[in-house]
Amino acid sequence: MDSAKGSQAQCESLHTDIESFFQTAPPLKDHFDTSRKLREFIQQNSPTTGNGIGRRIVCVTSGGTTVPLEQRCVRYIDNFSSGHRGAASTEYFLKAGYAVIFLHRRGTCQPYCRSLPEDSLLECLELKEGESSIQVRESYSEDVKGAIRHNHEAIKEGILLKLPFTSIFEYLQILRMVATSMNSLGPYGMFYLAAAVSDFYVPWETMAEHKIQSASGPLDMRLAQVPKMLIMMRKEWAPVAFCISFKLETDTNILLEKADMALKKYKMNMVVANELSTRKEEVIVVANSGRITVRRDKTNSDVENPLIKLIVDRHSTYIEESAKN
Amino acid sequence: MDSAKGSQAQCESLHTDIESFFQTAPPLKDHFDTSRKLREFIQQNSPTTGNGIGRRIVCVTSGGTTVPLEQRCVRYIDNFSSGHRGAASTEYFLKAGYAVIFLHRRGTCQPYCRSLPEDSLLECLELKEGESSIQVRESYSEDVKGAIRHNHEAIKEGILLKLPFTSIFEYLQILRMVATSMNSLGPYGMFYLAAAVSDFYVPWETMAEHKIQSASGPLDMRLAQVPKMLIMMRKEWAPVAFCISFKLETDTNILLEKADMALKKYKMNMVVANELSTRKEEVIVVANSGRITVRRDKTNSDVENPLIKLIVDRHSTYIEESAKN
Repeated sequence: MDSAKGSQAQCESLHTDIESFFQTAPPLKDHFDTSRKLREFIQQNSPTTGNGIGRRIVCVTSGGTTVPLEQRCVRYIDNFSSGHRGAASTEYFLKAGYAVIFLHRRGTCQPYCRSLPEDSLLECLELKEGESSIQVRESYSEDVKGAIRHNHEAIKEGILLKLPFTSIFEYLQILRMVATSMNSLGPYGMFYLAAAVSDFYVPWETMAEHKIQSASGPLDMRLAQVPKMLIMMRKEWAPVAFCISFKLETDTNILLEKADMALKKYKMNMVVANELSTRKEEVIVVANSGRITVRRDKTNSDVENPLIKLIVDRHSTYIEESAKN
Repeated sequence: MDSAKGSQAQCESLHTDIESFFQTAPPLKDHFDTSRKLREFIQQNSPTTGNGIGRRIVCVTSGGTTVPLEQRCVRYIDNFSSGHRGAASTEYFLKAGYAVIFLHRRGTCQPYCRSLPEDSLLECLELKEGESSIQVRESYSEDVKGAIRHNHEAIKEGILLKLPFTSIFEYLQILRMVATSMNSLGPYGMFYLAAAVSDFYVPWETMAEHKIQSASGPLDMRLAQVPKMLIMMRKEWAPVAFCISFKLETDTNILLEKADMALKKYKMNMVVANELSTRKEEVIVVANSGRITVRRDKTNSDVENPLIKLIVDRHSTYIEESAKN
């Protein structure tokens, strides 16, 4: 077969898959509200509107998506992710002067809250001795103050917009909305796709309406592949944005090979390759110009610190080069 | 086939399945610590040790279990449950004078925290105007004070023990530990099994070690049934305890039939039948003596309030009757 024709056929089939995904997905509950918040946020921060106070804008995705197995959702498949990477990266992007759209899984780690314990409200607060008022426990005092101050400042300044998702259907619908809105930013927009997105799903219309019964024998399930949305991101949603995807594997042997593949196939500007067991210590950034290993500085707490520095630097170069063309 | 022999064969096969489940499950990380806490809690509260200050003890299970699909867990199946029922019930059991072992899914709703928002620490606290100290926002003041006060009091008095789980492997290992420890309480012990436990799982030894690849085509999965542990509870772990299980369905037509079946098959004292969409308004309590519909009182906020009253009453009768035999 003619290879150009083959590739065109593949592309059309992807288009059909993606359209069918969105058409059959349950509609977003707060579509209108999210869309309004997003528009205002981008308008307010955009460096291209010419009011001279603009910032670059990055959409950081964070946490795992769920795949419902039943329409009235009792069971679902979840991709594990604490959201630590996304939360940390958001802090460093804000520090570097970016405005951040934090597209995160509900309940996962929030920016500036990484050092707080689980059940943080019950753990961090106590009753004052013999009184009815509340105070922050001494040992958590600085962490709690820092979290509240930084978070509220960022929200108040209008440089941090938090958008939550749970299912793969919510995630991809919001991501499309963000991407098409950010398209107006041209090269000033960035996508930092750290969320752990399901590769497989059960198409909504083929899904069992009721809870799957366990009456007898094992359960056999067939999951379809989630269509590759990154291709859409590059082709239609926001073709000029600076785009970084993540590759997480538990098997080091196939990690870099898969990262290289993703770089080419999805035309990413960078792919951050990380291995599950060492991901907090080091990552390998794969780009067309080569591979760079980024390690956590031992005097410094996060691998995200040097990682975001490197990315911001590359983004600057990308913006300069775009201006020349 | 002889039906007695058939039933014996079934029973032996269940035994084998259960032994194999526990033998191949990944061992509990904090087995020793949990076991010690549990022993102390039961000893301290037991009404059978003769120090005259004892309480009845109930183990409330709450939230959904997860089923890992890979050994180095990236993906898992989750049973949805906010843990609201378990948290509310724990409050009412404490109010009724019980000591409660709250066996709950990490991150789900905690007793006394039901009215707090998501991301409660960030939402409920604020910086004092122009100062560096923290205060509770006026609108959340009473809720936060109540949560901290009630929670800390219950922990301090030693009448609330919180044990967290995430996976089905953790849940069932801890439940077995709790049940065999509570066996010494005889009829004074109660199990209120409100957790949403997976019916299906992937046996640890057949599980993929690495992340399942999405290279090509759909994913076919075969899940095995989780062996019916309630039978074990009745036969071996805590045969004399007062035992309540829950049946949640999305299809009303099969709900009561399944609740009746569970009552007989697992020799429960009560089965609480609830339908997903109305579960906060009413439940039907199924017992050998008949069915009782329990509804939320409109002047009163929770269906758990009358539900726990009914259960405590039946538990009293059960204890009295046990004393006669």
